[in-house]
Amino acid sequence: MSGSLTIIPVTGIGEIRPGDDLAAIIAEAARATDGGLLDGDVLVVTQKVVSKAEDRLVDIDPEVGHKPLVERESVRVLRRRGDLIISETEHGFVCANAGIDLSNVEAGQAALLPVDSDRSARRIRDALTHRFDVDVAVVVSDTFGRPWRRGVTDVAIGCAGLRPVVDLRGTTDALGRELQVTEVAVVDEIAAAAELVMGKADGVPVAIVRGIDPSWFGDGGVVADVVRDPADDLFR
Amino acid sequence: MSGSLTIIPVTGIGEIRPGDDLAAIIAEAARATDGGLLDGDVLVVTQKVVSKAEDRLVDIDPEVGHKPLVERESVRVLRRRGDLIISETEHGFVCANAGIDLSNVEAGQAALLPVDSDRSARRIRDALTHRFDVDVAVVVSDTFGRPWRRGVTDVAIGCAGLRPVVDLRGTTDALGRELQVTEVAVVDEIAAAAELVMGKADGVPVAIVRGIDPSWFGDGGVVADVVRDPADDLFR
Repeated sequence: MSGSLTIIPVTGIGEIRPGDDLAAIIAEAARATDGGLLDGDVLVVTQKVVSKAEDRLVDIDPEVGHKPLVERESVRVLRRRGDLIISETEHGFVCANAGIDLSNVEAGQAALLPVDSDRSARRIRDALTHRFDVDVAVVVSDTFGRPWRRGVTDVAIGCAGLRPVVDLRGTTDALGRELQVTEVAVVDEIAAAAELVMGKADGVPVAIVRGIDPSWFGDGGVVADVVRDPADDLFR
Repeated sequence: MSGSLTIIPVTGIGEIRPGDDLAAIIAEAARATDGGLLDGDVLVVTQKVVSKAEDRLVDIDPEVGHKPLVERESVRVLRRRGDLIISETEHGFVCANAGIDLSNVEAGQAALLPVDSDRSARRIRDALTHRFDVDVAVVVSDTFGRPWRRGVTDVAIGCAGLRPVVDLRGTTDALGRELQVTEVAVVDEIAAAAELVMGKADGVPVAIVRGIDPSWFGDGGVVADVVRDPADDLFR
């Protein structure tokens, strides 16, 4: 119905391997899911399959574990406790273990974040536009913890075709007064919504979010628009 | 279709005033929205209407502004910059200005957070169960900023009938190995998803999230289960 949103898991995507044509695999799997991708959909793709397709898999030396890798992938360490390191990556993301992923990869391996996760999103979007003739936005999502609150949530680490932060400054509130600042990080809310249909252990790495406000489509990237400038950041 | 989620804005809810029967107003408005509330739905209600119905409105002294109020509602100030105070509330929430809301209320007034936002959710849920015979979970949402990332997102400040953090520890990943720790804060992801259909200036304070995994229903509260114990918190 009008104004509502549908979030559809894309099932049937098998194990992704380095060099796989991720856009083609997603387009094929989506075809079997509720009539396929439609113009105006937002496709949410988890970091794990993007990193695998881009061959961001590295071997872990069993002698030393994954910690040297975390140090190498970090530009700044914010906190340490036991085995946990909260650090900032080259992209500017602040997360546990520099976003290095040890689950859902072969034993002895780890998956690094994509080198440029906005570019990863653009590549998938461009392939879908040019080879599959469908105009969708793409979000690459990952699972991060947060300070002060228990539990992880999915956030965006890359996007294409979408304005990541929608600025409602200057529009009026329901009582007719001007709202001061409401910049909503819709890209992160879309990533969180998609996670609700993925499940961590079910191997559903892609979801379609259908019904997003058309005015939110446009240009932007997560690194440019969502990562907070350290100079403006009260917690860095 | 199977496994998908629908997020439905509940329109037609007018201005809420102190003492209003929020559950009855929501049930009535939802009846006109896609067939009404169904068993198994999650109802997301914004803090603003909960605070208004519970008469958490206070006058702001125009001489001194809202800052003394922020100090009074804070148990600990984490950061100050200019007019902005990031503080911890009695509930344990860390947010700007102690969650005090100056938009969408009458000029000269402010809306404080509910005293016990999990109890607020339980009251709405109980009223819907007993008077409207529908078994739904309820989430009270609010709009918070985050460190390190620009833009606000909606998170949960209260819930009833839902396990706020779903623990996937001990289940196996898609490659058959045991996942180490994946505690997903589904209650926050549900709040974020609902915000996507609300819009900040459209006056849609309630949304229905339909299709949530039935195993996520159960007991819990945001303050007990999501607020991180300061002793475990690397950022407090």
